[in-house]
Amino acid sequence: MYILGIDPGLAIVGWGIIEYKNAKFRTVAYGAIRTPAGMPTHERLADIDRQLDEILEKYKPEQLSIEELFWNTNQTTGIRVAEARGVILCRCHKRGLQISEYTPLQIKQAVVGYGRAEKRQVIKMVTMLLGLAEPPKPDDTADALAAAICHAHSGGSRLAQYYNLK
Amino acid sequence: MYILGIDPGLAIVGWGIIEYKNAKFRTVAYGAIRTPAGMPTHERLADIDRQLDEILEKYKPEQLSIEELFWNTNQTTGIRVAEARGVILCRCHKRGLQISEYTPLQIKQAVVGYGRAEKRQVIKMVTMLLGLAEPPKPDDTADALAAAICHAHSGGSRLAQYYNLK
Repeated sequence: MYILGIDPGLAIVGWGIIEYKNAKFRTVAYGAIRTPAGMPTHERLADIDRQLDEILEKYKPEQLSIEELFWNTNQTTGIRVAEARGVILCRCHKRGLQISEYTPLQIKQAVVGYGRAEKRQVIKMVTMLLGLAEPPKPDDTADALAAAICHAHSGGSRLAQYYNLK
Repeated sequence: MYILGIDPGLAIVGWGIIEYKNAKFRTVAYGAIRTPAGMPTHERLADIDRQLDEILEKYKPEQLSIEELFWNTNQTTGIRVAEARGVILCRCHKRGLQISEYTPLQIKQAVVGYGRAEKRQVIKMVTMLLGLAEPPKPDDTADALAAAICHAHSGGSRLAQYYNLK
């Protein structure tokens, strides 16, 4: 079962697809959807939707893991992130993915074992757990993979059961 | 040329379609898209997308007028509104609508002639300008029609020119 992790944004949407089987991770693919700064918001949103749909079509993940959105200090950026997140949730639901949301604390806890871990610790653990040659770039992609790892761990027993049955 | 006004939300999306021709308004249709409170967010977003697409298919508006989102005191509600707004912008862009955004101040200024007008004044003016038998319900629908009126007024000269050419 492929798990898609996403870190939403308007300029950059980090994404990563992993498989979790017999308590082992396999990294399927990861990257970042980017939209140009000069493009009107609605075009950027439609562009994210189109690029995401291509990824869903290509890899056919069955589960989406995405961070819950909390309000940050930059409210205008926050609105744009939420708009992009809405498009992403809508597209993934239409593609039949099962959707799970986690708080930043849950994700850090699952990946680093400590809910208040720093970003660099998260990136380091993601790199190690997935056995990557180097840290995934940009940070948004690492965050997306962290969300996917969190979901694999959280649903660990259920997923293990699923694979044992096969 | 049909102008679609939208007041975004997750529970209720107010919408209204008007035509502005020879400095006169004609009300084509209006209403509200509703999604049930118990439904998961991603399903509600997909439901909004589907219902909106039916409206676009049926009436084929060419322009969208939508209020710019500002942050309110309820940040969680704000995130949900922004997510719905993202879905709406994406769908309307895909359907080829030209998209215009206005601040609440611009909309009130255009409809009531006073940027700090109260909601009941906006509703009263929308009802009068469109010659409706009674105020549109819910308020979200009145707000959507106000956004459409604002766009008609703002683009007035250009629209007039468009119709004179026909």
